[in-house]
Amino acid sequence: MKRLIGSNQEIAQLLYMEQLELSQQNSDVEELVEDIIAHVRTGGDEALRHYSAKFDKIDLDELQVSQDLIDQAFDKVDQDVLAALKNAKGNIESYHCQQLEKGFEDQPSDGVLRGQLIRPIERVGVYVPGGTAAYPSSVLMNVIPAKIAGVKEIIMITPPQKEFVPAILVAAKLAGVDKIFQVGGAQGIAALAYGTESIPKVDKITGPGNIFVATAKKQVFGIVGIDMIAGPSEIGIIADESANPAYVAADLLSQAEHDILARAILVTNSEKLADAVEVELEQQLQTLEREAIARPSIEKNGRIILAEDVDSMFELMNLVAPEHLEIAMNHAYDYLDKVENAGSIFLGHYTSEPIGDYYAGTNHVLPTTATSRFSSALGVHDFIKRIQYTQYSKAAIHAAEKDITSLAYAEGLQAHARAIEVRNDRN
Amino acid sequence: MKRLIGSNQEIAQLLYMEQLELSQQNSDVEELVEDIIAHVRTGGDEALRHYSAKFDKIDLDELQVSQDLIDQAFDKVDQDVLAALKNAKGNIESYHCQQLEKGFEDQPSDGVLRGQLIRPIERVGVYVPGGTAAYPSSVLMNVIPAKIAGVKEIIMITPPQKEFVPAILVAAKLAGVDKIFQVGGAQGIAALAYGTESIPKVDKITGPGNIFVATAKKQVFGIVGIDMIAGPSEIGIIADESANPAYVAADLLSQAEHDILARAILVTNSEKLADAVEVELEQQLQTLEREAIARPSIEKNGRIILAEDVDSMFELMNLVAPEHLEIAMNHAYDYLDKVENAGSIFLGHYTSEPIGDYYAGTNHVLPTTATSRFSSALGVHDFIKRIQYTQYSKAAIHAAEKDITSLAYAEGLQAHARAIEVRNDRN
Repeated sequence: MKRLIGSNQEIAQLLYMEQLELSQQNSDVEELVEDIIAHVRTGGDEALRHYSAKFDKIDLDELQVSQDLIDQAFDKVDQDVLAALKNAKGNIESYHCQQLEKGFEDQPSDGVLRGQLIRPIERVGVYVPGGTAAYPSSVLMNVIPAKIAGVKEIIMITPPQKEFVPAILVAAKLAGVDKIFQVGGAQGIAALAYGTESIPKVDKITGPGNIFVATAKKQVFGIVGIDMIAGPSEIGIIADESANPAYVAADLLSQAEHDILARAILVTNSEKLADAVEVELEQQLQTLEREAIARPSIEKNGRIILAEDVDSMFELMNLVAPEHLEIAMNHAYDYLDKVENAGSIFLGHYTSEPIGDYYAGTNHVLPTTATSRFSSALGVHDFIKRIQYTQYSKAAIHAAEKDITSLAYAEGLQAHARAIEVRNDRN
Repeated sequence: MKRLIGSNQEIAQLLYMEQLELSQQNSDVEELVEDIIAHVRTGGDEALRHYSAKFDKIDLDELQVSQDLIDQAFDKVDQDVLAALKNAKGNIESYHCQQLEKGFEDQPSDGVLRGQLIRPIERVGVYVPGGTAAYPSSVLMNVIPAKIAGVKEIIMITPPQKEFVPAILVAAKLAGVDKIFQVGGAQGIAALAYGTESIPKVDKITGPGNIFVATAKKQVFGIVGIDMIAGPSEIGIIADESANPAYVAADLLSQAEHDILARAILVTNSEKLADAVEVELEQQLQTLEREAIARPSIEKNGRIILAEDVDSMFELMNLVAPEHLEIAMNHAYDYLDKVENAGSIFLGHYTSEPIGDYYAGTNHVLPTTATSRFSSALGVHDFIKRIQYTQYSKAAIHAAEKDITSLAYAEGLQAHARAIEVRNDRN
């Protein structure tokens, strides 16, 4: 891995500029996606069938995936995978239930009532990629928080395939998806945003996808809500001399195998550890199935930074604001206070990042490209709305009249003042 | 106002299409804004001075607004306005404090610890328009929730002016703004997103602005967080025969005076009320200072819909998902359960919408153009991050190994499985 030298500010700035470049999207796609969305808006189901034949080379009769097919998936799925999905589901549920928000109400003065209602978003669409990027774990991560929030209907879409991955259909059923449609790409996103004869219009779309899906999500944002546009995945590991180089290397590689553009960063105050991790990386790479992805990812985008001390390691990592943060130190929990920016934190030598991808119950849909400075993991809060309410009695509005009208007149908004004054008995 | 007839679904769809048109942005602006942002990124303060001379016709020496100027504003400001700002601040604080979230932690099984940290966003930028759109109330609404969230530094920017509106500087000081810079437009947004020699780079930008500001916010989204891109303001009033036509008309006009594009919608099951409101509208318009704005707004964009019954009124309004919703009925509180989509609700005959604009303490930065289907009023939650954390002991990861590796292999991600297996004593 490339080693970087400089002040934390300089290194963080450099890493950020590189990261932005890695997450650059192809703007040629924009126009094509615009056309596809416009076509689906007017053409509905027929447009979807057209694109399925064109892009997926499949002639679709029924757009909806039948209950039979879903039932069959339960027979076909590997039984260890089924058991693991059920256990993962339990953990994701028990973690996310803790995110449920309650409304509130107060009576700050006589005749005044204020509050906040929590309402679930009514209908949500979840995109699930096809082929090798079809991850049943992502189905659970997107659907379960929506279900806990109380979303009334969850629609899943996924590209048409000769044969669906059974674990995908199983995960959808376990998590509580209401309907599954076989439509992918920008055309699928358009169908969710605007609705067609078969596919109901949703209020929010979540889930990962390729450049066409990501571009389409951006374009329909505002018509519907979206979760986020994820860049390449990242891991940042803070490790000191107590860390096991084999563990650290394995965790860096688990990130690198995702994508040539994925980024693995090691920050350490131990040169000895840095050297040992590099030896381990090479050894582990040699027998890795996805070496063709992981090696160029590590060599091009992997970075090692030697820090002076513990505080400096955390200062740098807060500037980097990584998607995944591992703290490979003894008593890692005690360092939580030092973390300001990260999507998800993994504490200590045994908490390998893939635990979070699959199992612990925390969400694996996380902010990338330093956006953890201002955004968070997908959660129940992404599937609710907070609605304010206020009630003033006649006496209360009279008591507030002078203050409100002073401000309204100061802002030059006479009709605002009048709406208060008209309720006064003088009128 | 124009009266609409049809099914709730049809009317809602029509209103939505009209609303989208009202909020259409000018795409010619895109390129100009791109140029300005690129220039500020490379040129820093000098670029800001260039644009100030060009657009604002002011040669700037110091970009920062001095403490002296802020102190003087307290002498110049109208004392009734100062008192009203202080009272409004108290109400906004006491409402928003109730939105503060706590983290959580659980131990779902032996050796497993999971939790969620709440961290404030570090540095926030607030845009405040100049001229007649400089609203001190908006300063309070944007800054106070950030302050309650614990944001460490709040930077306000506002276009340079020969003389600042004293109430704006006073509101900034009262709310807890740390630094004020006199820079506006797209150049100001660029300065906040990328930083210059004088202006620190922020993590999130909030606050309303003209088309240049809105376009710039869209373009820097991802580099920084943003609040929302607001469309024209809207009010939806549900009223029955118990409503006072003079009150209803005054409230419709308080929305209409904002902007020719603003939209006022009345849904009622009483034809008598509908007729009486129209008479009142005409009477009140004749003496309104901003008649030139309010009249075309009401005539072009105002809508009255006659509904069959109470349930139908709420069904339609939930489809419309208005920014502001008034329930002008007796026992209005009892109808809260029927509301699914709205930014802020005003209950009963005396709770005029401007109470929320200025005073009650609820936020007036609200989702427009039916986006209350999936988003909420600005609040403390917009200025925090939720950071997940997990800790597994050696025994706990061994217990989870089979499940995690089953899923990793099923997804074809061997390095993910290995990161778990390497921690097993067998290795």
